[in-house]
Formats: sequence, C-alpha cells, structure tokens
Amino acid sequence: MVSGRVTIRDIAERVGVHASTVSRVLNSETRNMVSPEVIARVQKVATEMGYRPNPIAYGLRTNQSMTVGVVVTDLTNPVFPPTIRGIEDTLVASGYVPLLANSDGDQERKKLIVDLMRNRRVDGLILTTSSPNTPVILACKEDKLPLVVIHRTWDDPDISCVGFDDALGTHLILEHLVGLGHQKFAYIAGPLDLTTGRDRHFGTINAMREFGVEVDQDLFAVADAFNEEDGKKCCSELLSKGKGFTALVTGSDLIAAGCYQALKERGIRCPEDISITGYNDIPLSAHLQPSLTTIRTPRYETGAEAAKMMLERLNNPDTSPRWVKFPPSLLIRESAASPQNAQANSIN
Amino acid sequence: MVSGRVTIRDIAERVGVHASTVSRVLNSETRNMVSPEVIARVQKVATEMGYRPNPIAYGLRTNQSMTVGVVVTDLTNPVFPPTIRGIEDTLVASGYVPLLANSDGDQERKKLIVDLMRNRRVDGLILTTSSPNTPVILACKEDKLPLVVIHRTWDDPDISCVGFDDALGTHLILEHLVGLGHQKFAYIAGPLDLTTGRDRHFGTINAMREFGVEVDQDLFAVADAFNEEDGKKCCSELLSKGKGFTALVTGSDLIAAGCYQALKERGIRCPEDISITGYNDIPLSAHLQPSLTTIRTPRYETGAEAAKMMLERLNNPDTSPRWVKFPPSLLIRESAASPQNAQANSIN
Repeated sequence: MVSGRVTIRDIAERVGVHASTVSRVLNSETRNMVSPEVIARVQKVATEMGYRPNPIAYGLRTNQSMTVGVVVTDLTNPVFPPTIRGIEDTLVASGYVPLLANSDGDQERKKLIVDLMRNRRVDGLILTTSSPNTPVILACKEDKLPLVVIHRTWDDPDISCVGFDDALGTHLILEHLVGLGHQKFAYIAGPLDLTTGRDRHFGTINAMREFGVEVDQDLFAVADAFNEEDGKKCCSELLSKGKGFTALVTGSDLIAAGCYQALKERGIRCPEDISITGYNDIPLSAHLQPSLTTIRTPRYETGAEAAKMMLERLNNPDTSPRWVKFPPSLLIRESAASPQNAQANSIN
Repeated sequence: MVSGRVTIRDIAERVGVHASTVSRVLNSETRNMVSPEVIARVQKVATEMGYRPNPIAYGLRTNQSMTVGVVVTDLTNPVFPPTIRGIEDTLVASGYVPLLANSDGDQERKKLIVDLMRNRRVDGLILTTSSPNTPVILACKEDKLPLVVIHRTWDDPDISCVGFDDALGTHLILEHLVGLGHQKFAYIAGPLDLTTGRDRHFGTINAMREFGVEVDQDLFAVADAFNEEDGKKCCSELLSKGKGFTALVTGSDLIAAGCYQALKERGIRCPEDISITGYNDIPLSAHLQPSLTTIRTPRYETGAEAAKMMLERLNNPDTSPRWVKFPPSLLIRESAASPQNAQANSIN
C-alpha cells in the first residue's frame, strides 16, 4: 500500500517532535500524556500524509483491536436499526468500528457469535440479551470483556445497561387512556423473559392500580414474541372471551399491528369500538390506519449512549458501570379515542 | 482465559495427528491440503476443547482478519436490514464476522469509514456505492482488496456485483397497469446517480414504449432521495401540472408512501382516481391504506449471494468477478386498480 510507506518517523519529522511523541499520540492509551495542541498537530499531519497504522502490530503493542462487537436479536426488527446507527455513529467518531451480528435470541447462536467476536479480540461487547445469567454474559465476565447491555435494564452491578424508563412509558399510556374515559382495559404483554416485556407488563399493572382501574387478569395475554403474528393471536383470544373492554394496551407496535388485523377480521372498529396503543414508535406506526398512538422510545440516543459508555470504559478500565433509562414520550395519534359504544366489542 | 490454555499441540495429541496438520486445518488458506475426514476430526476436537486462536498471531501468520467490511447507505432505510442479515448469516456460517458501517451516501464519510475498515485489515468489502469510479473504490482496487457491490449493478469487469433485474421489475409493473387499462402514466424516479434509480427510470421508459404507452417527459419527476419527503414533493409537483394521469409509477415504496400523503392532502383517492405502485416491498407496504402494489426485491438472497461471492474470492483469489441480478416479482395489492374516473385527478 502506498500509505504503508508513511512511518511514525516521517510524521515526527514533519511535525518537528520525537517519534516517541507521535507514537504516544497514535496510541489511545498514551495519548493523554501529550498536550492537546501537539495531539492536534500530529493527527493533522498523520491524516495529510495518509498514515495508516498496522493494526496487527498495533494490536500486539496495545492489545486493542479498535473494534466493538454489537449483538442484537434481529436487525430486521425495526426496533433495532436506529439503536445500531447511534452506536455506529458514536464509535466511528472515535476511530472504532462495530462488528455486527444477530442472535435471534437463540442461546446457541449467541454463543457462536460472541465466540467469533472474542476470537477477533473485540475490545468490548454491546449486546441485547434476556438475562444477566446467560452463558455468554458469564463467559464475557470471565474474560473481563467490557460489556454494555442495550434495550434491557438489570440490577447487575458489574454491567452497564442502557434501556428505557418503561414505568414512565406505561404510566403515560394509562394516563392518556383514562383521561379519554376508558375504564375497561385489556393488555397484551411481550415475552416476560425479556426485561422490556416484563417491565412494561408490571408497569401497566401498576399504572392501572395507580389510576384506580380494575385489573382483570382474565384480560391479560402474553405474546410469545414482539411480532404481529403473536399480537393477532393474543388479540383474537382476548376478543373471543366475550368480555367487554374499550382499551387494548400492547407491549409493542408490532403486537398492536397484529391486533389491528384481528379487529379487522371481526369487523370491530378502532378507535370507535376499541382503542389500541403500541410501544416504540417504529416507522410503520404512523402509517397504520388508524395511525397508532404509541410511546416513542429514544432508540438512536440509547445506542449513542451505549457506545459512549463503552468508550469511557475502554479509555479508563476503572470506570464503574452505569445504568441509564431514557425517558420515553407519548405520541398521540388516531388509534385511541373516547369510548363511544363500550359494548360493541362484547358481541362475539 | 481458560480456553487460551488449549494449544494446537493439545488438539494434535487428542486427535492423534501432527501439530502441523492441526495448524493447516485451522488455517483456511492451507485447509485444502488436509483430507476432509481429518479436517472434521480436528475441528470437532478443537471445538470440544474450546480452542481459541490468537487472531493477532493468526493475522500475522495468514494476514487474514476473518472480518469483512459491510458498508450500506443507511441501515435505518428498511431496504437494507434484510440484505445485511443475508450477508451476516452467510459470513458467520464460515467463521467470518461483518464490520458494519453506514455511509449516508456521503463520499467523505464513506472514505473515513472504509479507511477505518482497511486499517482493521478487513479481508474484503461488501458495499453499496453509486459508481465504479468513487475514490473509495479506486483505493480498494489499488489495495487489491476483494470487493462485492450490492444493490447496484455495473459493467466494471474487476468488481463482483449483486443487484436486481430492474428491467424485469419495471416490465412487470407496466404490464400489470396496462392490463388494468391504464394509458396515462406519471413516473417518479429515485436519484439517477444511483444505478437503482437509473435502471428503474430507463426500465420504466422502455416498458412504456414496449406497451405502446405515451411517454410524457412532463409527467416524469426525479426524487432527490428514496424517501417519503421527496416522494411527496415530486407527487405534488406532478399533480399541480393539472395534466390528467391515472397511474403513478414510483421508484421505491418510500417514494410511493410519500405520494399517498400528497394525494390525501388533495382529497384524491387511490386507487379510484390514481393507481400507485412502489418498488422493493418493505414491511410498511402491506400496511399502507390502500396496501401497496409493488415489486418484491429478494434482498436477503442478494446479501447471502454477495457474502457467498466474497467467501469464494477469499478462499481462491483467482476467482473471477461475477455479476448477478436477482429476478424480482410482482406483488398485487390494493393500490392499483382499473381507472374508474380518469379525469378526477386533473381537477387542481
């Protein structure tokens, strides 16, 4: 490579400092030993001369690969792309590149993928995973591999987490629906083995109690996955019970989209007969008919924060773990309205 | 690391072969020197013993990083996630991991990202880019870095491409619309500096000529980007010309979704007044009201094929470039129907 010819010595000569200084600047672990002014000059010249470090030699010297593994359940789920972009934008700005993989929530595949990433000596892992006690997490802890968990929130003191304040989100939804006059609620939760499913489930129950709404366990369903198919299935089950309810709260927009289908098949109108709410505000939600009232989760910001935490930890291994929950916001659209004929949907 | 203690010698002892044989098996470049039967035994034992190569030493020996860079325009555009999944599933199955980054179609950012990836010594690059002559492509060629271009199709003999047969896709759309009785067409193309925009633009014109439909340049618009905002803008411009047309063909589903908004604002009905077609079949399209008649582009398969080409090239540097265009298919939904009152939309 042409640029391969440019050496640290060439840069030192051009800048007028010792090669050791250039070397310190180009090594993120020793950079802080050099004055900002010199750092700027060295980096400018290095760029101008098209200097390219040999990451293998660099890796041997600093034992850093300048890569961070990112593992999500499935990036074709519209919940994840904004988060991944937030991670990537933030990492790239600091000279790191993300290694990306999808786990499908499958422990075997997750283990394979994380092994592949550890084999590449990723400097850290940003991942979404169901619990603090998965083999993968334990293996990473054993390796002392820096971890940041996204879209999940645990109380594990050893691992940084970036998630959403689902207690607030569910509170906002219930407040809105009760304000519209709803008293009879049904609820479809996401998988309870995921903190997002669990937190929204309990958040909804707590909010219902807080607003003095009857909690009818018989009108609670749990979807096997955050997708339309399971949402439709659960909605049909709830409707077939013949119990009247005017508001259907769901754990995600995709679950809500499935409920739209179940209602359509039975000729039940939304919002006239039943109001429906989602969670996440994926792009689809604004286009559903009626457009979906939902909770916007700041996913890009979540990814950016996760990457920021990772960089802090990489620059200073003594950084203690942090737990951040981003506050979501209520998006009022067309799918939730005042109950007009609360009985309509009890005809089955 | 515990697994770090397992050496090639340990594996050789367990399998009952020489360490050099184990080493050959674990090196993709020399693996073919060993019998399949021995390869299987060595790999099985290596896995059982939790052997983990030191990729840095490995990289020095084979000069392979076992990573492949993947650069897309923006993974939050729903067109890309299935392609990326196809790439990742295929690479991971062969022990490679993708490094992912977004270029935003910006040459400066693209250069930064590709430099970061080349600095990580990626073994190859799979990317979407606008033309064969970008600085990035030329730099990669200079480095002799294996390249596969996705979602684009060039005639460059040095670079493998995997794209879609847009001539067929546009033919299928016109055939459908003409079959429904449409004769007055408007068309909104995507950016013409992208082969997807260009190929669909000329494909549409050719198909219109083929079916004896009048090509009215005045009813052709070009969106600045494949997004709703620019689709809405172009659609409003076309409508404000006051020329009657019954069918609006678009270069992508997002452009079509923008057209829906423009029609809604003017109280023009789809499909009664104007039929609209999209291109790609992103998840949104089935949920639009009316659901969008569009062309399904096999994106997962495209990604899988791109990764397959890359692996072939990495296993045998003499593999000559290939160009594959996947045939798309027509998805008939609700947004295109027989023209009922062809004049309705000329009232502006």
